[in-house]
Amino acid sequence: MSAGAVPIITLLTDFGLRDAFVGTMKGVLLSRCPTAQLVDLTHALDLGDITGGALLLRAAVSFFPPGTIHLAVVDPGVGGPRRPLVLRAGSQFFVGPDNGLLWPAAVQAGASAAFELREERYRLSSVSSTFHGRDLFAPAAGALAAGTPPEAMGPPCSDPVTLSLSSAVVSGREIVGEVLWVDHFGNAITNLDPGVVSAGVGERFALRAGGLRLPGPSSHYGAVEAGQPVVVLGSMGYYEIAIREGNAADRLGLARGTRVIAEPSQ
Amino acid sequence: MSAGAVPIITLLTDFGLRDAFVGTMKGVLLSRCPTAQLVDLTHALDLGDITGGALLLRAAVSFFPPGTIHLAVVDPGVGGPRRPLVLRAGSQFFVGPDNGLLWPAAVQAGASAAFELREERYRLSSVSSTFHGRDLFAPAAGALAAGTPPEAMGPPCSDPVTLSLSSAVVSGREIVGEVLWVDHFGNAITNLDPGVVSAGVGERFALRAGGLRLPGPSSHYGAVEAGQPVVVLGSMGYYEIAIREGNAADRLGLARGTRVIAEPSQ
Amino acid sequence: MSAGAVPIITLLTDFGLRDAFVGTMKGVLLSRCPTAQLVDLTHALDLGDITGGALLLRAAVSFFPPGTIHLAVVDPGVGGPRRPLVLRAGSQFFVGPDNGLLWPAAVQAGASAAFELREERYRLSSVSSTFHGRDLFAPAAGALAAGTPPEAMGPPCSDPVTLSLSSAVVSGREIVGEVLWVDHFGNAITNLDPGVVSAGVGERFALRAGGLRLPGPSSHYGAVEAGQPVVVLGSMGYYEIAIREGNAADRLGLARGTRVIAEPSQ
Repeated sequence: MSAGAVPIITLLTDFGLRDAFVGTMKGVLLSRCPTAQLVDLTHALDLGDITGGALLLRAAVSFFPPGTIHLAVVDPGVGGPRRPLVLRAGSQFFVGPDNGLLWPAAVQAGASAAFELREERYRLSSVSSTFHGRDLFAPAAGALAAGTPPEAMGPPCSDPVTLSLSSAVVSGREIVGEVLWVDHFGNAITNLDPGVVSAGVGERFALRAGGLRLPGPSSHYGAVEAGQPVVVLGSMGYYEIAIREGNAADRLGLARGTRVIAEPSQ
Repeated sequence: MSAGAVPIITLLTDFGLRDAFVGTMKGVLLSRCPTAQLVDLTHALDLGDITGGALLLRAAVSFFPPGTIHLAVVDPGVGGPRRPLVLRAGSQFFVGPDNGLLWPAAVQAGASAAFELREERYRLSSVSSTFHGRDLFAPAAGALAAGTPPEAMGPPCSDPVTLSLSSAVVSGREIVGEVLWVDHFGNAITNLDPGVVSAGVGERFALRAGGLRLPGPSSHYGAVEAGQPVVVLGSMGYYEIAIREGNAADRLGLARGTRVIAEPSQ
Repeated sequence: MSAGAVPIITLLTDFGLRDAFVGTMKGVLLSRCPTAQLVDLTHALDLGDITGGALLLRAAVSFFPPGTIHLAVVDPGVGGPRRPLVLRAGSQFFVGPDNGLLWPAAVQAGASAAFELREERYRLSSVSSTFHGRDLFAPAAGALAAGTPPEAMGPPCSDPVTLSLSSAVVSGREIVGEVLWVDHFGNAITNLDPGVVSAGVGERFALRAGGLRLPGPSSHYGAVEAGQPVVVLGSMGYYEIAIREGNAADRLGLARGTRVIAEPSQ
């Protein structure tokens, strides 16, 4: 990290905000790097939802400046044999369990090296078997923020666990995708992006999902009347199915994994 | 902003904390102003609740120091023709959609100028039609925090959308108000303030609401027995109806918009 | 606080995150100490849950660096005769209502002095009867962060309200404890710690709770099959009852106060 820069550490977990788990991790981070800017991505992932965490993390990283450290913990294997890792990717770093959670974001950011967090200096003096976010990952992320190189934290790891987020598949004149995520507004974000859709079915397309057939992209939510469904290009770069001033997932029965098919519009 | 001051940016949205929307906005803010102090006001507004957001924002601003920038996004018209604005008000700034959300707080803080956010330099290079909080408003708020004057961000706007929060009305020997907000404790905050009430009905008054008639203000919640209703002067400067160690809104059937009448106490 | 150190202020309340109560307190804190690092411990305590707040605060403090200021407000007596306090404990400070909330944490951190917050300079100019978090406690915590000694804030208090968190009791060849907390994952954290258990019943023990008898500690959650109950030493230093990839409290009928008995394993 360049001298004088303000280090940023993001946090993403399935810990919720009812306990003081996240706040306690921040105490450890600030003990190691008192000047860090701490940014919560989310702590409301479904318990053990590695795929959802990987998706949100991947969507967020390009909006953070060089040098940002991403601390992500969705860790059903805590205390067992799964390895604790730091990944270097471009100028960013990813710290968390070796279970795929970090992988899609790190790949997108240009992952170039991984190290196993074994060095005791970069752990708390006492390590529990239930809260590695506090005892292993936060000390390592804080040390990275304070300028420690990841090489100092343990041996290289040549085979981190990988994870692929589902991609749409071209099948004849259709593109078969699915709902990747349902957001707070009930919008159903698919894995259909404009490049794949226009190459496969052209600029004018329709989406079939949940028994409906919806015309291809509108310019924005307000292009339809209130209460009507609408397809727009969403902020993750994928088409999403929304209902203006309504909840598309509830109303149309869409959920993660629901099949969504793009086809020519007539 | 005076040299050396720490810029503060508050955030208020209806985005929830389940997705990484808010965290991603913070990445953009810190990309533009790495030293900013970021303060969440709330992200749990009801979807599209412009009036509620305007109320909470107005109640908060006087507790922040000069130079604070308030980034507020409740934006059902995102991607459509509604304008993106920055308002200057005293030494504070308000950034968000031109739909009234910012107006009551900016007026209270001494609104003196508005500008439309059109300058491309103060937007992300790619602007989605669904997430202007990230693509338009956060870059502008971050630039303000870094010292860019609002005049640089676009042309003056002479007719921002205004919004009035409901006021109590004097009607003979009564003052007719309503419940503006129900808080986390179930307290029903009215729009009746001591100035209006004492001018209209005197210092000794009673409140009628939800079929009950409650004696005028007690000194604090604990002035009645546990489980009993009580009227106190609340922290927004309005009278509120509470139940000691209980939930007044649920127990007394009070909700936003419920009529509340102040009348002489005998 | 040593010159140049970054002051940290933690916040713990039962205020929730729907209103702007917490954000407003942060405006007051930053008005008094613009460079403070603000860390939320939790704001989701059950309303009025002094004991739960005291437990979480005590569990968190040792993970924060010297000089940290802990602002904690669970305050059903707000506006009444209960005193507002600052406690000095080692190099840390605790600010909040005199109702026991601060006590277990302050004792653990080495409480050495208490002062009543009476000095008007360290309050807001107008003090409500409903929100001392904003009007009394935040200004005092901000002033501490800015270097004001607690002695300046009011007279010594020789008799702060104390609170004891429940301890396990040795009874013959059994140790009788209880569930102190149920966390976000549904794990039931008991008040049985390894020192007490091994002194009373030895290293090999079983736990009886909710009609079940569970073998003594496993190394980690994953030591049993998915869906099976498991006893592990948790991150608060107490034994906890979990279900791997499941919710132990729901499945086994465990809640705060549920009796848990440790006994020899055969």
